[in-house]
Amino acid sequence: MNLRLTLSYDGTGFQGWAKQPGARTVEATLAAALDARYPGWSGMAVAGRTDTGVHALGQVVSVMVGTGPPAANAALALNAVLPADVVVRSAAEAPDDFNARYSARARAYVYRVRVVRDPSALDARRALHHRGALDRSVLEEWAQAVRGTHDFTAFTPTETQHRTFVRTVHHAAWHDVGEELRFSIAASSFLRHQVRTLVGTMLLAGRGEPCATPDELLAGAHRRQAGPTAPPHGLYLTSVRFAGEPEGVELVGIP
Amino acid sequence: MNLRLTLSYDGTGFQGWAKQPGARTVEATLAAALDARYPGWSGMAVAGRTDTGVHALGQVVSVMVGTGPPAANAALALNAVLPADVVVRSAAEAPDDFNARYSARARAYVYRVRVVRDPSALDARRALHHRGALDRSVLEEWAQAVRGTHDFTAFTPTETQHRTFVRTVHHAAWHDVGEELRFSIAASSFLRHQVRTLVGTMLLAGRGEPCATPDELLAGAHRRQAGPTAPPHGLYLTSVRFAGEPEGVELVGIP
Repeated sequence: MNLRLTLSYDGTGFQGWAKQPGARTVEATLAAALDARYPGWSGMAVAGRTDTGVHALGQVVSVMVGTGPPAANAALALNAVLPADVVVRSAAEAPDDFNARYSARARAYVYRVRVVRDPSALDARRALHHRGALDRSVLEEWAQAVRGTHDFTAFTPTETQHRTFVRTVHHAAWHDVGEELRFSIAASSFLRHQVRTLVGTMLLAGRGEPCATPDELLAGAHRRQAGPTAPPHGLYLTSVRFAGEPEGVELVGIP
Repeated sequence: MNLRLTLSYDGTGFQGWAKQPGARTVEATLAAALDARYPGWSGMAVAGRTDTGVHALGQVVSVMVGTGPPAANAALALNAVLPADVVVRSAAEAPDDFNARYSARARAYVYRVRVVRDPSALDARRALHHRGALDRSVLEEWAQAVRGTHDFTAFTPTETQHRTFVRTVHHAAWHDVGEELRFSIAASSFLRHQVRTLVGTMLLAGRGEPCATPDELLAGAHRRQAGPTAPPHGLYLTSVRFAGEPEGVELVGIP
């Protein structure tokens, strides 16, 4: 059976998604749980390969399993052997051709920025602390400019395995949530570090520091023309939409 | 100068407040920061000695310092050398006779209970996950009964260094916050594990399991008659009120 799992994890204790020798990663942690509950599983695919420190609320994985609990019991069975910082939120049987990577049509992320004077010990690894003021109208202008189809070459490292740099952003907006600003974005797919570099660039512009215009940066500029890459711990993979599912990505709330 | 510091910390990475050989504790971490910024400091006192895994939003510390930054710069100076999971929220010069332990007149705590089916990876070390339903009216009855002056012997370990077991609770209430129930409580002082054992007992009663009545348990019953001690990671020291400050403890919001 092809099992579809929706995961959340606290990225703090993981060196990202992808398995690497000697590293605690989400993929390796989930693989160990699958070994325990579904021996002989194969072909794990993931919707969004998150970096070290990036969190997830609605990550999606597909995996072929043979013997083991039925799909209805898979979340409970896997959570019983998973550590507390990664959780299977739900599990369901998927069609044989469902692949969490290749069937995904949109990924949605949220980036949390605490715009306050005082740091927070409890949010230290969960949101970016930005002490200074940000010009909200500059952020709005940027969010609007980012929507649509652009060449995002400036927003990914120059050493790259990507072959195409044009991506279509379906949704991009800044929200006020208490003492935070949150940037939400959805696209069919993202370049490596794209969301973090967009955020780092918008914050640079929002502080009034010298920065190229959106028009320049969204037309295939060089990486050095964009701003710094914002740190990973403010970023959350919130949800994924798949082929055949209704459009309009739901932006899951952040606890 | 007598320095008054208000701290927040994420209890996850600490073996509680109190210094112990070989352990990462909040006291030892703060002492190292004081060594760096206020060499020769002495006489640190704390309002609430929290256990391993317990969090704080408004912990208060007093410490005598000689050379070093003025009080107005103390928070910035200490935060620059503290790790991200403990933060000085504010600092002020206090009268010479101010002692964070002995001048405290009320301590306030909040305990977070997520009453939902699915666990949360991001709240795994920040709130108790309670899968089953709880009878809200039983919890209310308990909160009401807890207020006032009682013998809390049943709510602290039998091996104890306390000499008196009567405490006066100024405030006790359950609140609905989204998918959570939060218990807030304030008292002049608490016995060891008192809040956690109160919560563990209330949850037992709220599930409809056999449990002695509040009247029985609040009149010096044996520890074995009360319920289990709830785990530490749902508990937050939220604020402390001192002699001469207006009554009515403010319950700080939880991020």
